[in-house]
Amino acid sequence: MTDCLFCKIVDGDIPCHKVYEDDKIIAFLDIQPLTRGHTLIIPKEHASSMDKLSQDSAAALGKALPTVSKAVLNATGAIAYNLVQNNGEEAGMSISHVHIHIIPRYPDSTHSFLWEYGKMDHDDAKILSKEIFNETL
Amino acid sequence: MTDCLFCKIVDGDIPCHKVYEDDKIIAFLDIQPLTRGHTLIIPKEHASSMDKLSQDSAAALGKALPTVSKAVLNATGAIAYNLVQNNGEEAGMSISHVHIHIIPRYPDSTHSFLWEYGKMDHDDAKILSKEIFNETL
Repeated sequence: MTDCLFCKIVDGDIPCHKVYEDDKIIAFLDIQPLTRGHTLIIPKEHASSMDKLSQDSAAALGKALPTVSKAVLNATGAIAYNLVQNNGEEAGMSISHVHIHIIPRYPDSTHSFLWEYGKMDHDDAKILSKEIFNETL
Repeated sequence: MTDCLFCKIVDGDIPCHKVYEDDKIIAFLDIQPLTRGHTLIIPKEHASSMDKLSQDSAAALGKALPTVSKAVLNATGAIAYNLVQNNGEEAGMSISHVHIHIIPRYPDSTHSFLWEYGKMDHDDAKILSKEIFNETL
């Protein structure tokens, strides 16, 4: 995609602080880090959301996660971390190219995800889980 | 792991509303849903954090993400969604078995991730990115 910032980083047209690369994946430091070592890991394939990514790229993305996560931990000394991947503008996605945030957590980290736990409606869950299951077949 | 809730779900000792399964992965509805269709996708392999997961399971986890995400969207009608995976108690992990939350977003959804954007220190980023890069080799 000619107008995609991350495709330009993949192509080397925009510089980045690269932390990992293989044939299908690249990872680099987020230019607006929540914490030190905040990393983005992205497929080289352009896809605007996870559901549109090829299984090949998705498998490569998954495979690289333990390696890159471990490297971020080892280099930063962080003891915990969050992975976040937003899909769609309404979900906070700003650049429409799949990217997973690896966000190291330190004792003074303030980022947090606002969870408002719901209670499962088991009757609805029975119906919905069948519907989702059928969609995966 | 005998005392792991998710291992018990994998083994069928605890019931769940299953939405996907293959030889390495299972996905089911979260019992404390943030929104309707909130799904957990987990490797059958027990690993307490992403950095400790085998590359095989991580690749299988990644590969299943587009399929399950698309199925959740199709069945719920949600237009956007967040993937969240917490590692370590300090990062909000409650069950120590790798799990990715797929959280559909609706017009009335209130969950949000508190981002406090930082500004990159490019001098530090040069050093740190090299350190992380070397850790991945």
